[in-house]
Amino acid sequence: MDWLKKTIKPPDQRFYHKALDKQAQLTKPPGSLGRLEEIAVRLAAMQSTEQPSIDKAWVSVFAADHGVAEEAVSAFPQVVTSEMVKNFVLGGAAVNALSRFVKADFEVVDVGLLEALGIPAVIEQRAGNGTANMARQPAMTEQQLLAALQAGKYAVNRALQQRAQLFIGGEMGIANTTSATAIAVAITGLSAERLTGAGTGLTDQAMAHKVDVIKQAVALHQQCINSPLNALQYLGGFEIAALLGAYLHAAQNGLVILVDGFISTVAALLAVNINPVIQDWFIYAHCSQEKGHRLLLQHLQAEALLDLNMRLGEASGAVVAVPLLQMACKLHNEMATFEQAKVSTQ
Amino acid sequence: MDWLKKTIKPPDQRFYHKALDKQAQLTKPPGSLGRLEEIAVRLAAMQSTEQPSIDKAWVSVFAADHGVAEEAVSAFPQVVTSEMVKNFVLGGAAVNALSRFVKADFEVVDVGLLEALGIPAVIEQRAGNGTANMARQPAMTEQQLLAALQAGKYAVNRALQQRAQLFIGGEMGIANTTSATAIAVAITGLSAERLTGAGTGLTDQAMAHKVDVIKQAVALHQQCINSPLNALQYLGGFEIAALLGAYLHAAQNGLVILVDGFISTVAALLAVNINPVIQDWFIYAHCSQEKGHRLLLQHLQAEALLDLNMRLGEASGAVVAVPLLQMACKLHNEMATFEQAKVSTQ
Repeated sequence: MDWLKKTIKPPDQRFYHKALDKQAQLTKPPGSLGRLEEIAVRLAAMQSTEQPSIDKAWVSVFAADHGVAEEAVSAFPQVVTSEMVKNFVLGGAAVNALSRFVKADFEVVDVGLLEALGIPAVIEQRAGNGTANMARQPAMTEQQLLAALQAGKYAVNRALQQRAQLFIGGEMGIANTTSATAIAVAITGLSAERLTGAGTGLTDQAMAHKVDVIKQAVALHQQCINSPLNALQYLGGFEIAALLGAYLHAAQNGLVILVDGFISTVAALLAVNINPVIQDWFIYAHCSQEKGHRLLLQHLQAEALLDLNMRLGEASGAVVAVPLLQMACKLHNEMATFEQAKVSTQ
Repeated sequence: MDWLKKTIKPPDQRFYHKALDKQAQLTKPPGSLGRLEEIAVRLAAMQSTEQPSIDKAWVSVFAADHGVAEEAVSAFPQVVTSEMVKNFVLGGAAVNALSRFVKADFEVVDVGLLEALGIPAVIEQRAGNGTANMARQPAMTEQQLLAALQAGKYAVNRALQQRAQLFIGGEMGIANTTSATAIAVAITGLSAERLTGAGTGLTDQAMAHKVDVIKQAVALHQQCINSPLNALQYLGGFEIAALLGAYLHAAQNGLVILVDGFISTVAALLAVNINPVIQDWFIYAHCSQEKGHRLLLQHLQAEALLDLNMRLGEASGAVVAVPLLQMACKLHNEMATFEQAKVSTQ
C-alpha cells in the first residue's frame, strides 16, 4: 500500500501569485467575479500555468454492491446497481447527458457488483462480489480494500494517458449512503442522527431504521478502527475505496479533482485524513440535498460552488459544475486588462 | 405607453404537467436533480413544448450615464461607462468572454451615454445625454422614459427576429447602483441603509455618503411618486428603463427571461409591480454580492440559481447560469425512462 503515502506537492505558489496579479488588471472591479476569480487562480497554481484550462474533463463512475443492502436501508432494490450500470453504458443516465454536454470522457468501472456483467464497455476491476454486510461483519478484507483502491488508481492512469485536465469520480451502489455515513461517523465523531439522510428517498421511519443500522455497524467495529483505511475496510464500499485511490493518485500526479456529492466527499474526507495536502487539489462542486453533506463540507472547511438541491450521485453534481470551471478559465485568459482596453481605474 | 400594459399570458400548464410526468419517469430518484428539474419543467411550460431548449441565448447590454455620478457615489469615474462600451465592442469584457463560451448573440445598446460614440457596432437608441442628477431634479422627462423603455422593446424584437430562446439584459452605467437602490427603496419601502451596497467597491465612509444621497433623492421626489413608472422617471436610469421595457416585451411575446444581478432585479421588481404575471417568465440567475440583492430576491420570493459572490453587472452573472439551463434541457430530453432502460423502481 506504499503508493497511497506518496508525496503530494502543493500547487505552485508562483503561478498562484501571477494569476492573482493578472486578475487585478482585468477590466472589472477587483474581486467582482467572486468565486470564479478564486477558481481561476487556484487552477493556474494547480496546473502550473498562466493559462489554466479545463477543456478536457474525465469522468469515472465506480459501481459496486453493498452487503448492508439486506438491512433494507435503501428505497431501491439492490438489482438497480447493475441495471444502472447498463444504463450508463447505453448513455441514458443523467451523468451521460451531462458528460456529453461538457464533452467529458466518460467510463464506468465495475469495482464489485454482485455478479460481473460481461459487457465489454464496462471496465471490470472487481474487488469482490459486493461487500459483506458491515452491520454484521467487516465489509471487506484487506486484500479487497487494496484491489478497490487500485481500481481508482488505474482510472486516473487512463485519465492521465488521455491528457485529462480534470478528474471527476462518481459512484453507483444501492445502499452506499449507509456505508458512506457510517465512515463519516467513524472519522468525524459527528452523530449518525445528524449525518444520516434519505439517500434515494427513504421515508422518515425507514430513515430511523437506517440510523440504527449505521450505529450498529460503527459500534460493532469501533475497537478495530484506528485509521482512515481501517474505517473504510470495516464499513465498506468498494466504490468509496476506488474514489479514495483515484483522489490520492490524481493529486500525486498534479491532476485537478472535482468532488461530487456526499459519498465522494466521504472519500475526500478519508483522503484529507491520510494526507492533508490533498485539500488543495480538491474543488467541491456542489452541496447536495443529502442531509450530511453540508455538515461534512463544514467539517472540511470547504465551500461548494453550487447548491441546487441535487442528490443523485453518479458524478452528476460535479459535471454540472464543469462549465463554471471552464468559464473561470475563459475569463482569466480572454478578458482585456485596463491598460489594453484603455479603461480608467480612477 | 399602451404597449407596456399588453397582456402577458402565463406559461402553458399542459406542458408544465406533461414535463412533470416525464421527470417522474426518468432514471433517477424522484426530485434528485433538484432545481434542474424545476427549471426544465418551467422551460417546457414557457416554451409550450415537450423538448425545451436554450441553444440560442441573446444578450443585450444597455449602457447609459447618470447625473447622480456628480455626487461622488462610485469608486470609478464616469468616463468608465463609455470606456467599457468600447471594451464590449472589442470583446474584452467579462460578458464577452462568457457570451462567446455559451455561444450567445451579444449586442451593446447606447440608451444615453453622455455623448454618442459614433461606433457602428454600438446600437444607438439614446434617450438623452445621461440622466439629470436625481438628488436635485427628476432624472428624466416622461418622453425620455418612453424612449428608454422602447430601446428595450427594440432589443427584444431583434432577439425574436433571430429566434432567440432566452433573453438576457445587462447594464453598464457608472453610479447606477445608486439609482437602482433609490428605486428599490421607493418601491419596497425597505430602508436605504439596508439596501445600499458598495457598488463597484466603495469604502464604508463613501457608502455612508451614498446612503445619504439616496435618501435625499427619494425624499425630494416622494410626493410625485405614485407608480412604478414614476419611480423610474424620477430616480432614473435609462438602462434600467430599457431593461424594464425589454422584460415586459419579452414576456408579452413568450420569450424566457434570465435576470442578472441587483440592477436587473430592480427592473424585474418594477415589471412585477406593473404586471405580476411576468414573475412566471423570470428565472433569477444569481444572487450577487451587492448588499441589497438578497433582500430584493426575498422580497420577490425569488430563489436565484447561483451564489458565487459576483458583483459585476453587465449581464455577467446571468450568462454564467446559461449552461445550467442548457443542462436542465439536455437531462429532460435525453435521459432514458425507467421503462426504456429496464431499471427497477421497487
